[in-house]
Amino acid sequence: MSGKIKKIAVLTSGGDAPGMNAAIRAVVRTCAYYKVEILGVYRGYQGMIEEDFVELNARSVRDTINKGGTFLKSARSKDFKTKEGRKKAYENLKKHNVDALVVIGGDGSFTGALLFNQEHNFPVMGIPGTIDNDIYGTTYTLGYDTALNTAVEAIDKIRDTASSHNRMFFIEVMGRDAGFIALNTGIGGGAERILIPEENTPVEELLQDLEEGHAKGKTSNIIVVAEGDKSGKNVFQLKEYVEQKHPEYDIRVSVLGHMQRGGAPSCYDRVLATRMGVKAVESLLDGKSNYMVGINNDRMDLVPLEKAIKGGEGDKIDKDLIRIAEIMSV
Amino acid sequence: MSGKIKKIAVLTSGGDAPGMNAAIRAVVRTCAYYKVEILGVYRGYQGMIEEDFVELNARSVRDTINKGGTFLKSARSKDFKTKEGRKKAYENLKKHNVDALVVIGGDGSFTGALLFNQEHNFPVMGIPGTIDNDIYGTTYTLGYDTALNTAVEAIDKIRDTASSHNRMFFIEVMGRDAGFIALNTGIGGGAERILIPEENTPVEELLQDLEEGHAKGKTSNIIVVAEGDKSGKNVFQLKEYVEQKHPEYDIRVSVLGHMQRGGAPSCYDRVLATRMGVKAVESLLDGKSNYMVGINNDRMDLVPLEKAIKGGEGDKIDKDLIRIAEIMSV
Amino acid sequence: MSGKIKKIAVLTSGGDAPGMNAAIRAVVRTCAYYKVEILGVYRGYQGMIEEDFVELNARSVRDTINKGGTFLKSARSKDFKTKEGRKKAYENLKKHNVDALVVIGGDGSFTGALLFNQEHNFPVMGIPGTIDNDIYGTTYTLGYDTALNTAVEAIDKIRDTASSHNRMFFIEVMGRDAGFIALNTGIGGGAERILIPEENTPVEELLQDLEEGHAKGKTSNIIVVAEGDKSGKNVFQLKEYVEQKHPEYDIRVSVLGHMQRGGAPSCYDRVLATRMGVKAVESLLDGKSNYMVGINNDRMDLVPLEKAIKGGEGDKIDKDLIRIAEIMSV
Amino acid sequence: MSGKIKKIAVLTSGGDAPGMNAAIRAVVRTCAYYKVEILGVYRGYQGMIEEDFVELNARSVRDTINKGGTFLKSARSKDFKTKEGRKKAYENLKKHNVDALVVIGGDGSFTGALLFNQEHNFPVMGIPGTIDNDIYGTTYTLGYDTALNTAVEAIDKIRDTASSHNRMFFIEVMGRDAGFIALNTGIGGGAERILIPEENTPVEELLQDLEEGHAKGKTSNIIVVAEGDKSGKNVFQLKEYVEQKHPEYDIRVSVLGHMQRGGAPSCYDRVLATRMGVKAVESLLDGKSNYMVGINNDRMDLVPLEKAIKGGEGDKIDKDLIRIAEIMSV
Repeated sequence: MSGKIKKIAVLTSGGDAPGMNAAIRAVVRTCAYYKVEILGVYRGYQGMIEEDFVELNARSVRDTINKGGTFLKSARSKDFKTKEGRKKAYENLKKHNVDALVVIGGDGSFTGALLFNQEHNFPVMGIPGTIDNDIYGTTYTLGYDTALNTAVEAIDKIRDTASSHNRMFFIEVMGRDAGFIALNTGIGGGAERILIPEENTPVEELLQDLEEGHAKGKTSNIIVVAEGDKSGKNVFQLKEYVEQKHPEYDIRVSVLGHMQRGGAPSCYDRVLATRMGVKAVESLLDGKSNYMVGINNDRMDLVPLEKAIKGGEGDKIDKDLIRIAEIMSV
Repeated sequence: MSGKIKKIAVLTSGGDAPGMNAAIRAVVRTCAYYKVEILGVYRGYQGMIEEDFVELNARSVRDTINKGGTFLKSARSKDFKTKEGRKKAYENLKKHNVDALVVIGGDGSFTGALLFNQEHNFPVMGIPGTIDNDIYGTTYTLGYDTALNTAVEAIDKIRDTASSHNRMFFIEVMGRDAGFIALNTGIGGGAERILIPEENTPVEELLQDLEEGHAKGKTSNIIVVAEGDKSGKNVFQLKEYVEQKHPEYDIRVSVLGHMQRGGAPSCYDRVLATRMGVKAVESLLDGKSNYMVGINNDRMDLVPLEKAIKGGEGDKIDKDLIRIAEIMSV
Repeated sequence: MSGKIKKIAVLTSGGDAPGMNAAIRAVVRTCAYYKVEILGVYRGYQGMIEEDFVELNARSVRDTINKGGTFLKSARSKDFKTKEGRKKAYENLKKHNVDALVVIGGDGSFTGALLFNQEHNFPVMGIPGTIDNDIYGTTYTLGYDTALNTAVEAIDKIRDTASSHNRMFFIEVMGRDAGFIALNTGIGGGAERILIPEENTPVEELLQDLEEGHAKGKTSNIIVVAEGDKSGKNVFQLKEYVEQKHPEYDIRVSVLGHMQRGGAPSCYDRVLATRMGVKAVESLLDGKSNYMVGINNDRMDLVPLEKAIKGGEGDKIDKDLIRIAEIMSV
Repeated sequence: MSGKIKKIAVLTSGGDAPGMNAAIRAVVRTCAYYKVEILGVYRGYQGMIEEDFVELNARSVRDTINKGGTFLKSARSKDFKTKEGRKKAYENLKKHNVDALVVIGGDGSFTGALLFNQEHNFPVMGIPGTIDNDIYGTTYTLGYDTALNTAVEAIDKIRDTASSHNRMFFIEVMGRDAGFIALNTGIGGGAERILIPEENTPVEELLQDLEEGHAKGKTSNIIVVAEGDKSGKNVFQLKEYVEQKHPEYDIRVSVLGHMQRGGAPSCYDRVLATRMGVKAVESLLDGKSNYMVGINNDRMDLVPLEKAIKGGEGDKIDKDLIRIAEIMSV
């Protein structure tokens, strides 16, 4: 492993998520606490390759815990997918006397971290930062709780107008491969129907549900659709399909989009980020590598990066929540 | 005119807007204060035709001042565009001993109110309720201030992610015929460029601005586009156009959509709604008709409905704001 | 136990908490789903004694999931502490053919429920609703997550003014017997120091910390104090004590107070309330009684009411969080 | 006057207010636009005396428009109240080749600016920044609109708990000498009664109103009290007074406090700040001095500093709003 660690680098990679700044702050302050030097890497792996670095200390992360986005910025790096790119990155870290690396990001970022470790025997530790919550081995990822609140507040607003006009709304929320945001904001937003990638709901079934609701006198309806829903139709096509069958329905579409990624993190995400940042640094100082910090049963956990990337058997979605959503739309 | 007014009806019409409930509440409580009966009409003019009424009193509007939407609901009414429809509506009001009508809505709703008055000599008073602020004779319409805050908060969130990734965002805000929301949220959201219907910005000019910004080292950009921008391209086409010329730009689109119509009204909109509701009832009791209540120089104003509908010369947009927006993107 | 359950009553008791309406809604809709009748009890146990009831159905809880407070209202009941009071309550439930009772509230409410069950062999099920999170057997109580966000948003605002003026702020948050809110909002709000009942921090230690911070050049400081802190001084006395020693510090006090109890519930609290409501009804229909529904490791749990009331050994506070808070104020 | 202006200094003074950063940003960018140099002064007049300066440019105010507080910080300065202090300040400005000064603050700050001008013939321009809205010659001051929203959101939350428990709440809002915040948030928050310094409501009258409301069956009540109310009793004493007469009322007190000063500015405050910043710089470049920029009838205005300080005849409070508040509590 790595002898005594005297300097740690930290970067954010992949899509930004609320809580990333809080995690960087925690990494930085924990290093300060243990008198370990800390180097910030701008623009993720690409900045590591281009030597885009900044020395950080306890004061430089003042007033960052409540900021959305990531002040170290993030970027996708094609170069880091090449062996040469990773070698260059390694040389840059060594040049700056860095002994270990904390990567805040999603599974793509962890894959890169694992390769980097394997090729250069360099200690790495992952922190799961993505609003999608689609990482195995941790109950929650950074930014997910905030994104849920952002989306549910938007749905509340749309419901005002849906109720006022007896309208039906198809609301698309984020989640390319995972229905966590859709399922939870659908339940929290009081949606009549929720479409998620994990379910493959046939459009005919959706149509039938809407017809039954209509028959029961439901005049306004919210249908929450995950970005990655696999009904074969996107949210605009769904609207058209339903309208063709029922021209009498007054349907609107709203795609919540990128605002779900931003905003001040919720208290939960700030505390989670802080705990994970401390755990990541302490684990590296403890001589550990190739883990992701996770939270399970409200406790910090170390999950092998490999497991976090490959995932477990079946999906992580709680089937009971799907059942509960159905009961609520009685 | 109308003899002594003993009963007033109130309805909301056209697109819903935050503050409509606060205005209904104010109308109801002012009636209670003056011991005048008050009838709520559901679903705007259509409910008037279908006799969809509810007796209201001071207590029935408890806890409504902070709610978005309109609890009397709103709807567009084809029937009210016919003479027969308006006659039926008139008969229903007379049947319920209603002596005067308060209409909360936009200019389409006021056109209907004016016709109704002309045909049946029925006292009417308008309250401008629309987030678009596109009504003449009043500096502000109900819901506009709230919509500005909603849009600017969304832009703030999107900026987090734009800054983190050095991205360009085209954000479409509401405003089919008027650029008020775009211009003010563009300035408030720190946008580099704002496209509004009143300006007809050629796409080439937009492109040049973006190129100049890029040359100056601006890595992230927010461009706010009004729904009704007349550049000849919608927001998705604009993105494509710019991407074709500059494949190196990383551009995203976000359409804020219907969430801009909902949500708890701002303090300003609540107070404005309350003042307008009081003024509308007191004006009717004063024997006045065919006016819209407006606010100018922070004072209540009575504006002839005709003027509110026809508009003044030129547009209402403050040219100086356009100039200010340009200075800010220096 | 109780034969087949055909009708369930639901009440909210003790201090109100965001999510209570969402829990009532879930109880009501789950009953509707299983074709069980549902009776709402106003004003907690007192309403049960005074027969203050309302028949509820799936539609009557429409648009409640996002509302703070409890539409069934809550009250403390002296009468229910007497055997006669509980007998009267029992008779009223029987009169209305109620077979089981769901109580949403804190440990005081659960003590009442348990007595009620013991005396009248009446099936009861508890749902933990309190912002304080001070109930054993469940990782989270309803309203706690929302209260954390409310408090942290207030702290963010105060930090703006603290930073602008280089001031020190003592901010009192709720938590009479438990430091959960203080500890988590202190970490989430980036506080320099956190005082909680579980710790008994001597004022001298606080003073020393502040002096060290001052020496390190920290010009603004947030100190979060739990309502029930046992330093022997309340937040105003703390301010005076510190000011006496250091007249050069510019100190302000802010007591966040009751606003922490209200507001639209967070997405987490809405989903948690929904899950708990479903679980409570399904457990009663399953023939179970004398349990509280809890959440542990993100799964629904049934905890004997007795255990929830008596608590476990030691306190529930995560000692590691205290350590983390210290590291962050390095 | 001052020949050609080539460099302008800007400072914030007095209590901080949301929108101050947006105003600094506008001053800075307008200077950049006109190719005038710009110097930031830290900690108001004190920083001017202590030569606590920072050179600013268009980029250095990036991402500040949405931040509460003031990044230039604010402080009260005893030294600037002396002739020597002002002389030292003047010398520092000359040393840095500053030709004119923009002061963002309240009437105390403007008094200082006027003295500074008189003694050193130095061009000054004021921007009204205070949440209290207690400055003559401008309909609105920076931060006021944001503070209204912050307070009304807090009142909404408290109303949730007031309604749930049938409680009465005395809520103290800011406003030492002026009742603007109390009057508008009282109306916007649906308060039963509002106490403001301009009114001198006798406590007996308050008591009588509460009794009448109670008789009419109002079970929960919000009474909004301005910090500077002159009933002779503070908010805690009012509570005690009412409780002595009516021990059956369940009364709570909430002091909203300093959180009203912070937070992201509303869209209105951002745009107002931007307009004022542009106007201040353009007016100085135009050779004007000793004015405050104001907004009246939605247009920029120049008001002699003297007038802004001395005030007009009578108070600025709209008597009609007081009347409207009474009607609403019918």
